[in-house]
Amino acid sequence: MSQPSPCPAKIEINEVAPRDGLQIEARFVPTEEKIRWIDALSTTGLRRIEATSFTSPKAIPNLRDAADVVTGIQRREGVDITVLVPNVKGTERALACQVDEINLVMSASDSHGLANLRMTPEQSLEQFAAILDASKESGVFINASLSTTFGCPFEGDVHEARVLERVEKLIDLGIQGVTLCDTTGMANPAQVKHLCEAVLERWPETPFTLHFHNTRGMGLANALAAWQAGISRFDSSLGGLGGCPFAPGATGNVCTEDLVHMFEAMGVDTGVDLDALLEVAATLPDLIGHDVPGQVVKAGKSTRRYAIPSVHA
Amino acid sequence: MSQPSPCPAKIEINEVAPRDGLQIEARFVPTEEKIRWIDALSTTGLRRIEATSFTSPKAIPNLRDAADVVTGIQRREGVDITVLVPNVKGTERALACQVDEINLVMSASDSHGLANLRMTPEQSLEQFAAILDASKESGVFINASLSTTFGCPFEGDVHEARVLERVEKLIDLGIQGVTLCDTTGMANPAQVKHLCEAVLERWPETPFTLHFHNTRGMGLANALAAWQAGISRFDSSLGGLGGCPFAPGATGNVCTEDLVHMFEAMGVDTGVDLDALLEVAATLPDLIGHDVPGQVVKAGKSTRRYAIPSVHA
Repeated sequence: MSQPSPCPAKIEINEVAPRDGLQIEARFVPTEEKIRWIDALSTTGLRRIEATSFTSPKAIPNLRDAADVVTGIQRREGVDITVLVPNVKGTERALACQVDEINLVMSASDSHGLANLRMTPEQSLEQFAAILDASKESGVFINASLSTTFGCPFEGDVHEARVLERVEKLIDLGIQGVTLCDTTGMANPAQVKHLCEAVLERWPETPFTLHFHNTRGMGLANALAAWQAGISRFDSSLGGLGGCPFAPGATGNVCTEDLVHMFEAMGVDTGVDLDALLEVAATLPDLIGHDVPGQVVKAGKSTRRYAIPSVHA
Repeated sequence: MSQPSPCPAKIEINEVAPRDGLQIEARFVPTEEKIRWIDALSTTGLRRIEATSFTSPKAIPNLRDAADVVTGIQRREGVDITVLVPNVKGTERALACQVDEINLVMSASDSHGLANLRMTPEQSLEQFAAILDASKESGVFINASLSTTFGCPFEGDVHEARVLERVEKLIDLGIQGVTLCDTTGMANPAQVKHLCEAVLERWPETPFTLHFHNTRGMGLANALAAWQAGISRFDSSLGGLGGCPFAPGATGNVCTEDLVHMFEAMGVDTGVDLDALLEVAATLPDLIGHDVPGQVVKAGKSTRRYAIPSVHA
C-alpha cells in the first residue's frame, strides 16, 4: 500500500437505519414510534440522519409515512435530515417537508440497477438531471449513492475504471456529494483503500461518503481502510439493521454504535455521545421485534470492567 | 500513524478452535469426532493447529482426552501440531505425544493471571523456566501467549510499557515465539498498530503471533492493523468459536474462515484452501450442537453470484 495516510482526526456519521434499516423489516414501525426513535437519535451527536424514503408506498410500504415522519420529528441545529428520493415527484414531496439534503440512488452495475431500480445507469442519470432541475431553487444539498461500487451480486467484479466513470458523470451533472456503497458486503480493505485514494485524489473538493455492509464480517475493517485513505464520512445503521433483498443470508449495514466505538477508541472524534447512542440502540429489539447484529450493545464498551471472580468459584 | 508499512505478502494461520474453542463449550465432543475434525482441518492448508491442552482433566473436562487426540490424529508435513501446557507435568505428557510446538499462557495483568491461572505473572515466569528446562532436549518450539495484552477485563488499560517488559522477560528466558492476545476483545486498530510496530522493531528475530477476539466487532479490523504493521502470524478459530469465561456476553475468537476470506480477497497468500476450509466450517454446528458466529460460511464468499431476479417478481 502507498504513501503515508491522512487519517482524519474527525469523522461524521450519517445514520441510515430509519431508511435503509426499516425498509426491509417484516413489520411496519408505527409513525409515532419512528418519530420518537429519530428524535432520540438526533440528540446523540450524529451529524446526519437518513430519515425515510419518498418512494411510492407500494414499492416500500414500511416507509409509506415519509412526509408524516419528516414533518413530525424535532429538527435540531447541526443534525441534517436527509431522505432518499427516486424521482421528481419524490423530490417535490421531500422539498415540501423542508429536508436538508436529498439522496439519490443508482447502481454502478447494469443488472443491479435493473433489478433494484428498473433502470439502467444511463436512465438513472437522466432521472437525476430532472431532479437537479426540480431542486435547483431550493438550495438543498443533493447527494448520490452509487450501489454495487465494490462488486455486484449478479455480475461480480465492478472495475474501478467503471466506478470512476460513473462518479465523473455524477459530478459533471452537478451532484454535490457521492456515497460509494458496498451494497452486498463484497468489498475488501485493499480494494477500499485503492478506490478511496483514487476518488480523493481526483475530486478533492467533493464530499465522499462510504457505505459498508458487514455481510462477510469486514465492515469495520473496510471503514478503517477508508479512513486510512482519508475518508471522513460514513453511512452506518443503528444495531447493524439493514440488508439487501438480492443477497439472501446477508447481514446488515455496518453497525453505527460498533463503528463509533472503534473510532472513538482509536482517538478519532466522531462527534457522537456513545453512551447516549447505546441507550437508543438498546431499545431497537423492542422497536422492530427481533435481535440485531450490533455487538457493543451486548458486550459493553471496551472500557467495561468486570468484578474479579472468587478464586474458589 | 507512522511510516510506510511492510504488509506481508504471506501470512500463517494457527487454528485454535480445537483448544480455545472447545474448552468452553457446554458439550464434550467425543474423541473420535475431534480427531476426524482435526484431520479435516489439517488438509486445508492451515500452517499450525492448536489441537488440545494438557491441563488437568478437572480444570478443563472438555479436553480430558488430550493424549488420545494428539496420538490419534494424522500428522501431515507442513502442519505443526501445537498444544497448550500449564506446567512441567503437562509438558512431559505433551512431549510424549511428539507435539511440534508447546504453547504457554500467562497474563499481562496480575488480576487476570490470578483469576485465570491462579498465578501472578512472576509465578508464571518461574513455571516457564521449569518448562523450558524440561523441554530443552526435545528441540520442540516453545511459544508463550500473553493474555490481556490489549486490556484487562478487571483492571482496564494495560500499558504498553508493561507489555513490553513482559515480552522482554519471556524472550530473555528463552521463549522462542510470543503471541499477543486480546483476550476479551478490548483492542482497537490504533493500539494494535502501535504495539505491533514496537515489538517488531525491538525484537525483529522473534516470531510474533496476534490473537484477537471479535467481542466488539473489531476482530478483522485489528488483524488488518497488525498486518499493516508487519505481522504475518495469526491465531484464529473456525466459525469464531471460543470466548472468555470472565467476560460474559463476549463472542468468540476472530473467525478463521472470515480472516482467510478477507486476506485472500486482498491478495494476501494465507496458504489456505478457503473452499476446503468452508466445508469443514459448515460441519461445526453439528459437531458442537449450536450455531456459530462465522459469517462467510453463511453469506458465501464475496465472489458468490446470485441469479438475477425476475423484474416482475
